[in-house]
Amino acid sequence: MSQSTMSRPAVPVGWLKLALTPGLGPAAIDRLGVEPEQWGELHQRSLAELRQLGLAEPQARSLRQPDPELLERALAWLDHPRHHLLTRIDPLYPPLLARIDDAPPVLFVNGDPGCLPAPQLAVIGSRKATRGGLEIAAEFSARLVQAGLTVTSGLAAGVDGAAHSAAIEAGGRTIAVAGTGLDQVYPARHRDLALRIVDNGAVVSSFAPGVGPRPGNFPARNRIISGMSVGVLVIEAGIRSGTLITARLAGEQGREVFAVPGSIRNPQARGCHRLIRQGARLVETAEELLEDIAALVGELAGELRARLDQDAESGEPDTGLVEDSPAARLLEAIGYDPVSVDGLIERTGMSTREISALLLELELAGHVSPQGGDRYARC
Amino acid sequence: MSQSTMSRPAVPVGWLKLALTPGLGPAAIDRLGVEPEQWGELHQRSLAELRQLGLAEPQARSLRQPDPELLERALAWLDHPRHHLLTRIDPLYPPLLARIDDAPPVLFVNGDPGCLPAPQLAVIGSRKATRGGLEIAAEFSARLVQAGLTVTSGLAAGVDGAAHSAAIEAGGRTIAVAGTGLDQVYPARHRDLALRIVDNGAVVSSFAPGVGPRPGNFPARNRIISGMSVGVLVIEAGIRSGTLITARLAGEQGREVFAVPGSIRNPQARGCHRLIRQGARLVETAEELLEDIAALVGELAGELRARLDQDAESGEPDTGLVEDSPAARLLEAIGYDPVSVDGLIERTGMSTREISALLLELELAGHVSPQGGDRYARC
Repeated sequence: MSQSTMSRPAVPVGWLKLALTPGLGPAAIDRLGVEPEQWGELHQRSLAELRQLGLAEPQARSLRQPDPELLERALAWLDHPRHHLLTRIDPLYPPLLARIDDAPPVLFVNGDPGCLPAPQLAVIGSRKATRGGLEIAAEFSARLVQAGLTVTSGLAAGVDGAAHSAAIEAGGRTIAVAGTGLDQVYPARHRDLALRIVDNGAVVSSFAPGVGPRPGNFPARNRIISGMSVGVLVIEAGIRSGTLITARLAGEQGREVFAVPGSIRNPQARGCHRLIRQGARLVETAEELLEDIAALVGELAGELRARLDQDAESGEPDTGLVEDSPAARLLEAIGYDPVSVDGLIERTGMSTREISALLLELELAGHVSPQGGDRYARC
Repeated sequence: MSQSTMSRPAVPVGWLKLALTPGLGPAAIDRLGVEPEQWGELHQRSLAELRQLGLAEPQARSLRQPDPELLERALAWLDHPRHHLLTRIDPLYPPLLARIDDAPPVLFVNGDPGCLPAPQLAVIGSRKATRGGLEIAAEFSARLVQAGLTVTSGLAAGVDGAAHSAAIEAGGRTIAVAGTGLDQVYPARHRDLALRIVDNGAVVSSFAPGVGPRPGNFPARNRIISGMSVGVLVIEAGIRSGTLITARLAGEQGREVFAVPGSIRNPQARGCHRLIRQGARLVETAEELLEDIAALVGELAGELRARLDQDAESGEPDTGLVEDSPAARLLEAIGYDPVSVDGLIERTGMSTREISALLLELELAGHVSPQGGDRYARC
């Protein structure tokens, strides 16, 4: 059952404890060799069992019994209709993020978690962007949401803020990934912006309430931005900037990197030029970008489908969007009246994750469009 | 004997007649299947012999007896100490140009033909360049000549003019390739600039005196610009511009294309962005460009040497710049007092063409520097 439905599900306490255990990041959890489906029950195992899995004593203790103050704080935060804890096995967990190495075990979400499986493009750049750079970020962002994409960024000053704001002003959806717990906003001057994002998408974090803006948090934040997105668009970036690190991570995750060129007089264009020399696609207009993305989304959705087929141990791999392909079957189940993902599960018998992947493909191909929440209709 | 020496050689009339015969361009001459060494004697063959080679009757007649007015005009133009006719087999004929398909059989030269075998970089761009584009053209051009390269361009308004002017102002050498006969200057407002180029390099054309600025001339002009150069740097270019055609020709000739990016707000940057997407190297600074070129010149010189070795049917191909390599042997023959190419022929026994190729390599490697005319000295 998705967390965006009306009746609020109970907080998945085992997953929350996982998130509250210091030093038990995604990589450490993966090393335990336990299937994600069982991660939510780990806190019920005995100290001896947890030690046998390879957990150090302090972590094993914390997992069974986290710092009561932190636990209290997280539970208090979660006791709000718009605050959610999304586990890695939740149907709404972003499908592309689930595929990366070290995907975070949980995401704290403030806003509509139903927007998370939709196709996203990351729009990122310098905190010290030029005025021209901010305008370009806003223009691209507006065009991208008008085309049905969700704009994802990092809530930072400069390009990030311009991208979020323009997406909202254009009537679209935007997702901010924070480097802090969601009981605080960093930078503080983006407090109002964060509230508007909550109303028009979601603010997301892998960090529990109470975690401040430690520098070490930002690489993890950046991995989520690119991990959730079909690609990363860099508007402006200095030559030694965090933006370039995000772009490198995106490349390592197999995400396409797009960069906007600028005048060689503009120091904030240097990072983009470096990326282009390293193989990023040079983009001048949102239209070019959308063409490239449509192809990418098709590829990604295809891969995702192939993986799902493999997961289901189906003997017949899918060959594409043929007449009785899953995408075509799903499209048949979607009418001109909006239907929720839960409704589609009922109509097709497909899994939520499979439906999310196929919707991503159908949406970018222009067959369906999101109607708010997790509802879709034929175009 | 080179044409830049003090005693003027006689005009190579056979070659001039070749240049004055309409419809007998480089491709048509190549199709005759006669070695370039004999092209200068073709006009002495009988009509029947010429017809047998495949020449049409009117061309065969013209080759034996060109339009007397055109011949008179060309001879009158050549009767000036700075006006030269360089044949394809002349030692000063640009070695890189000689390698392209359809290299022009002759070049008319106004200025110092000794500058033609030196390593050149083409700096080209829009006639309607922005003020910023003109400044960038001037800055790159000045740095390139300071590094010992000759800046080659097309004498046009906009980027071409800025590149020529800046090369001269920086105390360097520049070569303009014209799309008309050299008894006229196109565009007329570049008359003064053309005179300054003659004093600081050369104005060059494959067209005989009397030929006006016909649109059909410019593709041939563009092939010479890129053909003489180790690479082509595009500063600004519209999306449907002659500059992009030159860049494409350069690519077909195996020349590296470099392009300067610009703001996506600048329509004159679009051509550069298209080139970058098609594989041109993005350059931000002259220093980057010089590094790339140093590598290219090494490669080109190596290829050229290998071809010369092959031409000489030498059994032992050169493996590079080893201790007793031709380049090392040539360097040994060059002292700190300037020496002419003719002097080097005497000292080494190498051919002028081989020496030109090796000088190109030694100059870019910083071992020798041009001293004016065709004289070189150790650095």
